[in-house]
Amino acid sequence: MTRTDDNSTDDKSTDEESVGQTMHARLSALYPICRSITGDGVRQTLAELQTFIPLIVHEVPTGTKVFDWTVPKEWNIRDAWIKNSAGERVVDFQQHNLHVFNYSVPIRATVPLAELKKHLHSLPNQPDDIPYKTTYYQEDWGFCLRHNALLAMQDDQYEVLIDSTLAPGSLSYGELFLPGETADEVLFSAHVCHPSLANDNLSGVVVAAELAARLATKHRRYSYRFLFIPGTIGAITWLARNEANTSRIKHGLVLSGLGDPGSITYKRSRQSTAVIDQTVLSVLASNRDPYTVQDFSPYGYDERQFCSPGFNLPVGRFSRTPYGTYPQYHTSSDNPHFVRPAALADSLKLLLQIVDSLEARELYVNTNPKCEPQLGKRGLYKELTTSSDTMAMLWVLNFADGQNSLVDIAERSKLPLESIRSVASKLETHGLLRRIH
Amino acid sequence: MTRTDDNSTDDKSTDEESVGQTMHARLSALYPICRSITGDGVRQTLAELQTFIPLIVHEVPTGTKVFDWTVPKEWNIRDAWIKNSAGERVVDFQQHNLHVFNYSVPIRATVPLAELKKHLHSLPNQPDDIPYKTTYYQEDWGFCLRHNALLAMQDDQYEVLIDSTLAPGSLSYGELFLPGETADEVLFSAHVCHPSLANDNLSGVVVAAELAARLATKHRRYSYRFLFIPGTIGAITWLARNEANTSRIKHGLVLSGLGDPGSITYKRSRQSTAVIDQTVLSVLASNRDPYTVQDFSPYGYDERQFCSPGFNLPVGRFSRTPYGTYPQYHTSSDNPHFVRPAALADSLKLLLQIVDSLEARELYVNTNPKCEPQLGKRGLYKELTTSSDTMAMLWVLNFADGQNSLVDIAERSKLPLESIRSVASKLETHGLLRRIH
Amino acid sequence: MTRTDDNSTDDKSTDEESVGQTMHARLSALYPICRSITGDGVRQTLAELQTFIPLIVHEVPTGTKVFDWTVPKEWNIRDAWIKNSAGERVVDFQQHNLHVFNYSVPIRATVPLAELKKHLHSLPNQPDDIPYKTTYYQEDWGFCLRHNALLAMQDDQYEVLIDSTLAPGSLSYGELFLPGETADEVLFSAHVCHPSLANDNLSGVVVAAELAARLATKHRRYSYRFLFIPGTIGAITWLARNEANTSRIKHGLVLSGLGDPGSITYKRSRQSTAVIDQTVLSVLASNRDPYTVQDFSPYGYDERQFCSPGFNLPVGRFSRTPYGTYPQYHTSSDNPHFVRPAALADSLKLLLQIVDSLEARELYVNTNPKCEPQLGKRGLYKELTTSSDTMAMLWVLNFADGQNSLVDIAERSKLPLESIRSVASKLETHGLLRRIH
Repeated sequence: MTRTDDNSTDDKSTDEESVGQTMHARLSALYPICRSITGDGVRQTLAELQTFIPLIVHEVPTGTKVFDWTVPKEWNIRDAWIKNSAGERVVDFQQHNLHVFNYSVPIRATVPLAELKKHLHSLPNQPDDIPYKTTYYQEDWGFCLRHNALLAMQDDQYEVLIDSTLAPGSLSYGELFLPGETADEVLFSAHVCHPSLANDNLSGVVVAAELAARLATKHRRYSYRFLFIPGTIGAITWLARNEANTSRIKHGLVLSGLGDPGSITYKRSRQSTAVIDQTVLSVLASNRDPYTVQDFSPYGYDERQFCSPGFNLPVGRFSRTPYGTYPQYHTSSDNPHFVRPAALADSLKLLLQIVDSLEARELYVNTNPKCEPQLGKRGLYKELTTSSDTMAMLWVLNFADGQNSLVDIAERSKLPLESIRSVASKLETHGLLRRIH
Repeated sequence: MTRTDDNSTDDKSTDEESVGQTMHARLSALYPICRSITGDGVRQTLAELQTFIPLIVHEVPTGTKVFDWTVPKEWNIRDAWIKNSAGERVVDFQQHNLHVFNYSVPIRATVPLAELKKHLHSLPNQPDDIPYKTTYYQEDWGFCLRHNALLAMQDDQYEVLIDSTLAPGSLSYGELFLPGETADEVLFSAHVCHPSLANDNLSGVVVAAELAARLATKHRRYSYRFLFIPGTIGAITWLARNEANTSRIKHGLVLSGLGDPGSITYKRSRQSTAVIDQTVLSVLASNRDPYTVQDFSPYGYDERQFCSPGFNLPVGRFSRTPYGTYPQYHTSSDNPHFVRPAALADSLKLLLQIVDSLEARELYVNTNPKCEPQLGKRGLYKELTTSSDTMAMLWVLNFADGQNSLVDIAERSKLPLESIRSVASKLETHGLLRRIH
Repeated sequence: MTRTDDNSTDDKSTDEESVGQTMHARLSALYPICRSITGDGVRQTLAELQTFIPLIVHEVPTGTKVFDWTVPKEWNIRDAWIKNSAGERVVDFQQHNLHVFNYSVPIRATVPLAELKKHLHSLPNQPDDIPYKTTYYQEDWGFCLRHNALLAMQDDQYEVLIDSTLAPGSLSYGELFLPGETADEVLFSAHVCHPSLANDNLSGVVVAAELAARLATKHRRYSYRFLFIPGTIGAITWLARNEANTSRIKHGLVLSGLGDPGSITYKRSRQSTAVIDQTVLSVLASNRDPYTVQDFSPYGYDERQFCSPGFNLPVGRFSRTPYGTYPQYHTSSDNPHFVRPAALADSLKLLLQIVDSLEARELYVNTNPKCEPQLGKRGLYKELTTSSDTMAMLWVLNFADGQNSLVDIAERSKLPLESIRSVASKLETHGLLRRIH
């Protein structure tokens, strides 16, 4: 396990530090695996997750029609290299799996440098980074390498090998369903198809897994569904197989890029002001940390599929620094050193708060809506230790009309959600509120 | 009658000065009475008001259930004091009725200072003010006194007397109904339960009474209902007894704190943009004086009851400086000297303008809605003395579609309401508009 | 033809220059005609337009009732002058037709200067401009003249002649209907009643005529209706005669003041956010030039009638510098020199873009709304030459839900409408979109 001490100045609690390090350790263990949209890399990753959450792994055969798409052939790779005429490996898959275009067809050939270069990809502006490149839906092969390594290559005859297979098999994804008191579901989805890339998206995978582990042991009003799926084709496959039940999804988040040191970026669902949007924003606003909100747009991660017009599910995207805006993105520099335990822990903490808010959001009705109830005769004034509690009680009584959730009331009153929730609970005990959802 | 010359620099008209002084004189006459939520103090106050407006006084027996509440025992008090061992009255109800906790149970005892102090309340930060304290719904007794008086009390044996009664009786409130052309009602409500406190709320009482006296002699399209009620329990009692008719209330204002020298504060109804909200804001905006607008919140005066979710009536609150934000609030410094005749007169003037706006707000329809009517052949261009009048006429003709009231048209056109009303009247005379409400 | 070289620095394309000059030549040819709300000046103008667009000329007899109005007597004028005692014409209709109050009754008299002055109108602040004055609905006579000419008039006996007739006849207007694939109509209306005034509104007339000529040869989804009508009474007359068919008008623009060098001013329809409002604003926003947007108000040009509450048609007003805000307005300085060929051409270009947008606005539905379609297998990624095209395709696929038009999608995505339209066309070719309107 790779560990970094970058977080030594972190002043969070020991517990948060500890969970951050646990997640970071899992991420580091998963990092070397060569994942893709299909193949053993994904299976190995899901098996690793199964050591601490009871994931079900689904296998969908190559050729299965999923809406406009078809499940592709399965890709596996054992080795790949470029050797110079001296027999030295100048590019080596064993050293870094980003060196091979993901989904490269097998090849064994000897070619001069000029010919080889047609199959090489590097980043002149980031000469020490290996880029990440895929060729999923077009049969092709190629190598990614550091630009400096490319510059160092002499005019020579090079032997190239890609020992991969692209053959009928299946697409694998993991799913964990945690039933709650109601059939209404909250969906969390993380893409699990990227090879040795840490923030994108092992960070999302390990945070989702830890979130699932924690919710598994909690009382749940909602049911929760966790998906660990290959990007795009995985989401499409899952939606195609579960179309009839998507109406149960009341709230959802795509989780990605949750380990970098930047602040949170929330991308609204296509619905724009769905309850999940309001809930996330309320949680973010109640924390002191800066954050950014983006309007929905039809590009990005799997929110593209969940929010396609035929589904239009209330699913937002929860990330830290937006993908594509940091130099490490989709390169070998997106490695476990780039991911901070404290950032993973902070992402988890916020997601738990979001879950808490969703759980707490059920609608109440004031059972005594005509005029205020007499709080004194029930001893409620004595139970309210602060004047802010009294205010909270008045707000809840006035706006618990079956339309405004506790989150809504917290926002309108500008009082902390915890305070609103605490008085709602007291009022329910005294029969003055009734939960209707 | 206590009179102050603080208003000598007031440059308002003689008539306004005169009505301000009349209201101030009435307030000063009512000031010494020891009111509470029940009892002879309220009755005496209502009887005083009956000398110039034909109030009906309702008596609701102790024990009557009113929603979640019960009409309490009636409280009356004749005398109260604390005597030192020399027999001197060091605290004397006869000197100021704030000296006794309102709703104190009777007591006669001799106690050492240390024991007595458990029943004493003062304001260390305002050492020359007697605070106001109540114990309505918890049987207890106590004295309020100036903090300086408390500091002067020697270690001694003190004799205390509270000659009060708390016994079955009734809750009294005053109601005045002025029928108009329609059954639609405008409600004005003022709390009448505070003892010797001038701005809170004798100012609201005398302004409401004068407003009622003036409306009684005016042509009225709306019907008007004035309530002089004990705070909270009075509003709840009235709503419980009149529940079936509350749908007639189309607009309403709670009147309180209308005599202090501060500017107007308007608190929106729970509906937020009801016609009363728009009307008040339009009147305030058309005056030059500064004013403040507050969003609805479920605390404050009797708007809490009128705007409880089971009623949700379009009732705002009309005040000057908000309660609780001035040092005189709920102390002996809230006395007739603190209330300015000019402020009472200004409050009345604005309320009359609000009534005028409501009366003038009836909806019109353009009888000739297809294209503009020909104004010239009716001599209307000659009747319009300014180009702003011409604009007003075009706006009224275009937007008098049965949806937009004259207030709405004034706001949309940014023209003065008087101008809009003046041209509407001319157009009606010429048969080009018809009033539909 | 009057030509100005003011536009020599114009860097627009030769074609635009050429059409600007063509329109300017037509305007200059129409300029000398003495138009009014009725009479031969209008007929001559419409006849001139008929040389290049197949206008139908309607004649509506004097006395015809049109809503609240009556078609007035027809006015014609042959000559008018003021001669001094030396027999010199000091004011001469032959030199400028603005010299006579439009709709002056005939007069022949000899009067001293003092008496004559009651019938003279000049602009002291613009002493070299002849003002424009009408007396349509009040029988009167008078002369307009340069203030400097007025100052130069000696105390003398003056002979005045106005050789006009005001007699039963008819009101003339021109109408051109271009049928399209659907009966839904787009209306363009220009007032054609002003005498020698160039920007107001010969500019609107020649731009509307050229727009009509171009649309006549284009494929049209919508039907188009062009009105060349006298202001106010013409619009009222047309609406009265065509009331039953106004529901076919889906979008419309009043065209006026389209030749001055200022930037575009768009005045919203009474509906405020009608499709025409959104379309015009989208076109303006996608150009680099500055522009101004005004809310609807019930004064101005014939939008007053089209947007009267009994019609409330989605008709905005498209102008350059707003009427009344430039010193040349309604004076002899509003002449062909004030109108720029480039401004006429720019107005036309924008109107053509607006028409294109309306034509292109039909609604599409994504035929594959559940998840994204697979673009790669259709070769669509290769067809998209820029990443902005890819974005456009994703936006169109996501929002083509039968609710959002392409204009709406362009606005929401902040992508150029052309790009959105281009990808929509490609997607339709591939069967991924279906046009539903």
